[in-house]
Amino acid sequence: MNSPETKLRSIPRSVVEDIVRQVTLEHLGRQRGLAAPTLTVHASARHMHICREHMDVLFGPGSELTVDRPLFQPGNFAAKETVTLIGPRSRIISNLRILGPMRKESQIELAFTDAISLGFDNLPIRLSGNIEDTPGAVVMGPKGVVELRRGVIRAAIHVHMSPSEAAYFGVKQGDLMKLRVGGAAGTTFTSVHVRIDANSRLNVHMDTDEANACGLHLAKDIELLK
Amino acid sequence: MNSPETKLRSIPRSVVEDIVRQVTLEHLGRQRGLAAPTLTVHASARHMHICREHMDVLFGPGSELTVDRPLFQPGNFAAKETVTLIGPRSRIISNLRILGPMRKESQIELAFTDAISLGFDNLPIRLSGNIEDTPGAVVMGPKGVVELRRGVIRAAIHVHMSPSEAAYFGVKQGDLMKLRVGGAAGTTFTSVHVRIDANSRLNVHMDTDEANACGLHLAKDIELLK
Repeated sequence: MNSPETKLRSIPRSVVEDIVRQVTLEHLGRQRGLAAPTLTVHASARHMHICREHMDVLFGPGSELTVDRPLFQPGNFAAKETVTLIGPRSRIISNLRILGPMRKESQIELAFTDAISLGFDNLPIRLSGNIEDTPGAVVMGPKGVVELRRGVIRAAIHVHMSPSEAAYFGVKQGDLMKLRVGGAAGTTFTSVHVRIDANSRLNVHMDTDEANACGLHLAKDIELLK
Repeated sequence: MNSPETKLRSIPRSVVEDIVRQVTLEHLGRQRGLAAPTLTVHASARHMHICREHMDVLFGPGSELTVDRPLFQPGNFAAKETVTLIGPRSRIISNLRILGPMRKESQIELAFTDAISLGFDNLPIRLSGNIEDTPGAVVMGPKGVVELRRGVIRAAIHVHMSPSEAAYFGVKQGDLMKLRVGGAAGTTFTSVHVRIDANSRLNVHMDTDEANACGLHLAKDIELLK
């Protein structure tokens, strides 16, 4: 293929201007003079979300999660509590961190690297909360053991944002965006799910496989694109 | 951004034809009627390449590698021999597979997931063989221990091809190509290094982080692009 520069040289200036105008009109948020929101990208290590019922079994009746450190999304936190996860072939991941607050249903999010080492074949890629027809696992806590019937997923890469940030990008709930990460391990994630919530702050969540694939810890040039 | 269709509608037909002509001329291979080569993509798990000197120390003087299974590239193989790798904070990876044949200099290729678990910070991303200013490690074999002064890298994603396959794609040694992987974890790797050799067969090598990020084991829609 030609480089973009080569292509541009062969397109008349008026046409380029037309394209720029169209794109600009679609980005009304920018025309209204909204400041570009700051993009933060975080790698989520494997973790568990826990429901009240399982909290009672694993940590004792009426027990509560304790905050280890707050996460970027308001109200969310890494808890001090951890569990041991036992996979389908009796392989184990210990010290699996619980993220709070508690949820209606327990859920475990693993990278494929974790899933493979545990013996899960073909773990489904899902948005958080969408756990129908997903595998289960055995979870061990200090006070008991739970057999999850379902809820083990590889979380799909997603971007949290507020309604005004969504307006800035011109996207709606459930849209897919692209995240371009430059550098030596240049990678573009082409299916970044948009999750809009009034309490959210602009923030891409990828898992550790994705972060390690693109060298997120080295990356300086990152762009979120419609 | 506009969809490609929207953009095309606003570009005069003559300009589109110009672009198509330019792209076509660059793809002379296809004009000559060459058949599209079959693309295979493999995930390389962490491994070691070993030199004669280190083979002598780790497996005994004059010892040879034994073939466990041949690899896709002619003459290359996974050896039966494995070593134990000891990282900078005395953490260990055991059963690190050696790939044959022997090389002039030993080299260890890790995914960032491996590197982080071993305690390597900021492992450099390199093409195989380019190991100046890379960290070393301690390697333990059944007959002895070697302290590598250098050679631990995260291998850059690359594509092996023959000169005729390179002609088909219109690329030369050292060019960067794109690998687009479709599906639920859609990912485009934008810095795939071209390595041309008369004995090579068209074959993309990525590491396990990259394979797990894009869900390579689930992917059906893969495309190598200039």
